[in-house]
Amino acid sequence: MNTQEALTLFREKQLRINSYRLALTTMNWDSSTIAPKKGADYRNHMMAILSGELFSLYIDPEYIKLIEQLAAADDLSETESIEMKQMLKELNKERNIPKDVFVEFAQLQRDGETIWEKAKETSDYPLFKPYLQKLIDGTKRNISYRNDTRSTYASLIDDFETDMTIEKYDEFFALVKEKLVPLIHAIKEANIPAPAFLSASVPIQQQRAVVELIREYLQYPKDAGLISESVHPFSSSFSAFDNRVTVRYHENNFTSSIFALIHEVGHATYNGQVNPEYQGRHIANSMTYGMHESQSRLYENMLGRSKAFWSSLYPKVVELVDALKDVSLDEFIFGINYVTAQFYRIEADELTYPLHVLVRYEIEKDLFEGNLTTEGLDEVWADKYESYLGIRPQSTSEGILQDVHWSGGAFGYFPTYALGSAYSAQFMNKMSQDLDIDKLMENNQFDQINGWLKDNIHTFGGLYTPEQLLLRITGETFNPSYYIDYLLNKYSELYKIKL
Amino acid sequence: MNTQEALTLFREKQLRINSYRLALTTMNWDSSTIAPKKGADYRNHMMAILSGELFSLYIDPEYIKLIEQLAAADDLSETESIEMKQMLKELNKERNIPKDVFVEFAQLQRDGETIWEKAKETSDYPLFKPYLQKLIDGTKRNISYRNDTRSTYASLIDDFETDMTIEKYDEFFALVKEKLVPLIHAIKEANIPAPAFLSASVPIQQQRAVVELIREYLQYPKDAGLISESVHPFSSSFSAFDNRVTVRYHENNFTSSIFALIHEVGHATYNGQVNPEYQGRHIANSMTYGMHESQSRLYENMLGRSKAFWSSLYPKVVELVDALKDVSLDEFIFGINYVTAQFYRIEADELTYPLHVLVRYEIEKDLFEGNLTTEGLDEVWADKYESYLGIRPQSTSEGILQDVHWSGGAFGYFPTYALGSAYSAQFMNKMSQDLDIDKLMENNQFDQINGWLKDNIHTFGGLYTPEQLLLRITGETFNPSYYIDYLLNKYSELYKIKL
Repeated sequence: MNTQEALTLFREKQLRINSYRLALTTMNWDSSTIAPKKGADYRNHMMAILSGELFSLYIDPEYIKLIEQLAAADDLSETESIEMKQMLKELNKERNIPKDVFVEFAQLQRDGETIWEKAKETSDYPLFKPYLQKLIDGTKRNISYRNDTRSTYASLIDDFETDMTIEKYDEFFALVKEKLVPLIHAIKEANIPAPAFLSASVPIQQQRAVVELIREYLQYPKDAGLISESVHPFSSSFSAFDNRVTVRYHENNFTSSIFALIHEVGHATYNGQVNPEYQGRHIANSMTYGMHESQSRLYENMLGRSKAFWSSLYPKVVELVDALKDVSLDEFIFGINYVTAQFYRIEADELTYPLHVLVRYEIEKDLFEGNLTTEGLDEVWADKYESYLGIRPQSTSEGILQDVHWSGGAFGYFPTYALGSAYSAQFMNKMSQDLDIDKLMENNQFDQINGWLKDNIHTFGGLYTPEQLLLRITGETFNPSYYIDYLLNKYSELYKIKL
Repeated sequence: MNTQEALTLFREKQLRINSYRLALTTMNWDSSTIAPKKGADYRNHMMAILSGELFSLYIDPEYIKLIEQLAAADDLSETESIEMKQMLKELNKERNIPKDVFVEFAQLQRDGETIWEKAKETSDYPLFKPYLQKLIDGTKRNISYRNDTRSTYASLIDDFETDMTIEKYDEFFALVKEKLVPLIHAIKEANIPAPAFLSASVPIQQQRAVVELIREYLQYPKDAGLISESVHPFSSSFSAFDNRVTVRYHENNFTSSIFALIHEVGHATYNGQVNPEYQGRHIANSMTYGMHESQSRLYENMLGRSKAFWSSLYPKVVELVDALKDVSLDEFIFGINYVTAQFYRIEADELTYPLHVLVRYEIEKDLFEGNLTTEGLDEVWADKYESYLGIRPQSTSEGILQDVHWSGGAFGYFPTYALGSAYSAQFMNKMSQDLDIDKLMENNQFDQINGWLKDNIHTFGGLYTPEQLLLRITGETFNPSYYIDYLLNKYSELYKIKL
């Protein structure tokens, strides 16, 4: 079979796979947003069967052979060649795992999540501990089937973030620790109370009106996007022209829905601005988790928490939200950037956020490198929170059991959250050289910002690795100092603290 | 393979098929309710692929062999045996159609719908005519592959409504024509104007509140049901515990959303009250279209348009809807039962509705029996409307082109709509012997009505044919006089017309 014949056949099989993926994406969306509770058992059963059908297509030897042929071909276009090499790399990660090992680990992941939920509810780390241990052991075993000379954790890092290494993360987090911890402690000592409006009661109808206002402002399209509600906000890419988000409304924490929206629309805008010719192909997705997170964080923090973002919007928001009647724009800006040391990563402000991630990174790395065991890990967690944030969790549900990730065997994922923010600062630095961002936001011209992001980042989808993309756009590879400097400048100014 | 082994294997394959069906049901729902428009092309493409995957499972020879073995087995339980014989009957209808004939007809159905849409827009019957002819010819050809000695139209009747025959329909529609046409003409001559509130402007928010009120009243469960919005109202069964409906809100026709809701919840309640042990099996669905329609019509008309239904509800509705402030309960009841001859079947009142169906039945039958051709059929249609309803459509878009059914090759479907109403009158007659229906509605005890429907009809799903079920419940087979008498009594009284 020549390359063109192989490519045609491969695309057919890819489309077939895509039909199952879209079905499962739709069922997941439905299940997380509107589906009646009592249908869950049957729905989950059917989704499990369909996932099995999809899995059989992935491991179809004929499909794999086509990928191998195409990844080795020298007469493909450049984008096709990149795509096929990426797919082969993904394939090689799992193809040597024996089926019984694979099935056993999948069962362990399901059990891990179930037990974690129970353990979290009752703050029972000892209940979860043996599963955490098995998940670590299972992950090590899975990776042992690869031809990979690196340490397990180094491989995991690479799985979630191509181009990243333990060394680079160490360097990054050392800076985070060195530069940010003193500032956070200084802010804590200043002891400035939280503005009252942050916890004011705001009726859901008013919050919905604000969300619609922001949707228009961000120019998130109604005919290619959708805002629904779910317990945890998320974004979901159905196709090039169907990228959705959810929010959740909290009566006494109305800024939560606002920033969840801006964050998720950041993700959706990325997916919606990938070159539509890539639709259904491997490169339609962002290359890495960190790169995707960079776009949501750029939206949420760099842009969404700036004064310019709100300058034209805020008067309209005040009209909609009674609780803001006597709150000035400056007071509002201070409030949405208020720094507070608390226990939960997902509730963290922009400045303390990377410290939450640091705790998880250090623990993951030490677990896999053999410097820590699961025994007493809840106390290690508490010690680190005390040291970095000056607070000590009193239960494991507000400590080590708060996140779902490890219970599903996702090790190496956490650091990408902080990395995304750091990428976004580096992109922001370049974008502000090309555009007068503040003026565009003040003039309600968010389309120009979206246009820059599209032309420089989004349109390429997963074609370039993060380092390639950073170099291409900013002229240098990953440089964490943009992020650190941004945080130091912004928060020392906001809190009037001399560094 | 013994029967039990065959049954186990069959159930596995059935579950697999069900996973595809639930996926497509979910995607259809999503597409009809909330999906962003621009994603339609990709979504439709993926759904077509997935439908193809599902079709391959249906025609898998191993699956068919299992059905044959099980349908012939004498050591199955009674319900299993009925189920397998039903499946074999379905299978035998299509299995002898050559694949190229099948594919060609599927293409014709798609083309037919596309051309019909265009023709309807421009009232261009000649554009649609050749496709209508091909669809009739193709349907005849499809049925010619069966071992069926009946006429084509007799087979089609049986496809949509087991137990029904041309003779029985002829008898039924003769009564409809003989008894109802004079009453409709008399009402037309009385010339009573439509109550103004029917076309009053009612804000969507007020309509939503009424819909929620009625949902509670009907005890349609939130944890096993859902009310969404779509262009055309419909109900959709996801599983035993997930049965959804949609409505559409019209600012100047607020009773439309109310009766669409009651109608669709009638369907959803049927599906939700089938014996949950049948979930995922062939008998989980109602046996016939007419039987399903009987439950929605019973809800919508027999119950929903009665004074007792509204006696406790109406004061609450008046509080929600400004336009009803000065409308008494009696005026409201007259309004929601107002009879008017107009062109569209889906907008027809309860009394004229069967005449709209009669027109279609007579035309279908004559087309297939060779007494009519597609040439000049639009004028035949207009003549019949003039004769039965005293109005003559001035364009084919308000005439023969108004319905989608024929464009997709669905011949024999229409009469089930009128039949459903007739079944419902026969059931209602029996239910009113067992229950004081009016009192239960006045006392807000709709659960008792649902309970009767469950125990007598719903719980059996598709286990019994309509005639078996009617005989079992009412002690006689289908008897159209309950329906005719009900309509004559109700409307002669409402319009004070002596018969």
